[in-house]
Amino acid sequence: MSLLSEPLQFTPDAAVGGLQPARVTLVGAGPGDPELLTVKAANALRNASLVLYDHLVSKAVLKLVPPGADLVYVGKESGHHTLPQEGIIDLMVRLARSGRRLVRLKGGDPYIFGRGGEEAQGLAAAGVPFDVIPGISAAQGAAAAAGIPLTHRDHAEALVFATGHLRGEGSERSVDLDWALLSRPRQTVVIYMGVGTLPVISAQLQAHGLAGDTPAALIERATLPDQRTVVGTLATLPELARRHDVRAPALIMIGTVVTVQRELGAVLPAAMLTGR
Amino acid sequence: MSLLSEPLQFTPDAAVGGLQPARVTLVGAGPGDPELLTVKAANALRNASLVLYDHLVSKAVLKLVPPGADLVYVGKESGHHTLPQEGIIDLMVRLARSGRRLVRLKGGDPYIFGRGGEEAQGLAAAGVPFDVIPGISAAQGAAAAAGIPLTHRDHAEALVFATGHLRGEGSERSVDLDWALLSRPRQTVVIYMGVGTLPVISAQLQAHGLAGDTPAALIERATLPDQRTVVGTLATLPELARRHDVRAPALIMIGTVVTVQRELGAVLPAAMLTGR
Repeated sequence: MSLLSEPLQFTPDAAVGGLQPARVTLVGAGPGDPELLTVKAANALRNASLVLYDHLVSKAVLKLVPPGADLVYVGKESGHHTLPQEGIIDLMVRLARSGRRLVRLKGGDPYIFGRGGEEAQGLAAAGVPFDVIPGISAAQGAAAAAGIPLTHRDHAEALVFATGHLRGEGSERSVDLDWALLSRPRQTVVIYMGVGTLPVISAQLQAHGLAGDTPAALIERATLPDQRTVVGTLATLPELARRHDVRAPALIMIGTVVTVQRELGAVLPAAMLTGR
Repeated sequence: MSLLSEPLQFTPDAAVGGLQPARVTLVGAGPGDPELLTVKAANALRNASLVLYDHLVSKAVLKLVPPGADLVYVGKESGHHTLPQEGIIDLMVRLARSGRRLVRLKGGDPYIFGRGGEEAQGLAAAGVPFDVIPGISAAQGAAAAAGIPLTHRDHAEALVFATGHLRGEGSERSVDLDWALLSRPRQTVVIYMGVGTLPVISAQLQAHGLAGDTPAALIERATLPDQRTVVGTLATLPELARRHDVRAPALIMIGTVVTVQRELGAVLPAAMLTGR
């Protein structure tokens, strides 16, 4: 595989004439462990000639891309996007129209907080055919690896996914979530991209009636060899995150199902207990 | 592969003495398409000598189990379980203690409405070591294949999974869900195992304030060659389900994100449009 440092060359649209755009494949890279790619996704990567990938795709997954294929980082780190979302869509459309068969590789599942929906819309609007290959979402990888069965019947009737990233511009930036929804009992809440805003999340959920002693966990770098799990409560988790210097990518899980982790922990593989 | 028709033979626990129980692997079989197994799950199946599987595991996935391996159906169809849950756990513990390396294969993801949590607890309580391999959940397979990007930012801030199966006994059986939670705006709701109770779900959500014209879809046999998608509204979906004779396994998706399906439909592969 090679990293493109030169500007990408396109066949100008006008010169393409009646050429059909090449098919694009939106691929979910899963939570990090390359063995948690789907068989279909692994095959798509092995046959790729050009891969556009995001910040949250693990290095171990990128190793599946064959030597000689072009690997282009269009990553999105909170706050400084390498390319704005519109630019990524424009790039994909232009590459497809130039006849390049393109794999768009996104962390987790393209349709769960991956903005894959916007990219699919952009491709569809431009008449570019595409496939979507789902991926194991971070919550699923973390649940399996940390021993937190998300929908255990003794603990949850519903499973809610939300994101904790900041919305808005400049000093108006804030976490804008449906706190009443997230504070309901008998559910498991998983918050993606919420490490930076954990103090706000903890305070808001308590202000909306969720007990401070509700069990809660942070899972950092789920399914990777250096995965860490920090278990506490809704009230204590922000301080625990500071003390253990938990960094993105990490997931927040909130709900009594987190207590099951203690029961299961003893018989999980040793590698899964790192850092607890 | 062979189907066990004779009663399983166990080494009596007393005779095992100090023998360590064999490791059990809880494997998510994904939504149906065998290519949507993870690489790790496909490897576990290829190396299996004994597989206990559920009703919701597709035949195509079972074909990955090698000839000579024992394949045992312990399926759960709504209303008539072949083995009660406790019996499945007991069976797994006894097989592991007899030294058999066991794969427990469950539809979708073991920790999303798969009762994998209860099985993991049972194994842990008995001191049986185990691994959990997550799987693509039906909602993810259906979203990718039907063109419904679950968390599209224009439509949803949260994604909620619940199940529509009946709880309770005899004439007390009913769908017991947090209707207020599921009726909130700006979210995508996915209900598993809800075809049979769709009229109740539709009525309750409307009674709790969700507009009858909220877009809604049914996806039957998601990711399998005979997948069908039926699109309507919260109010019309029960009648559409009757008219098109939609049967389990099928998922209900509710939320304005369902409208994106129209935009994406035109450029999805033809096979994904079957039955619309």
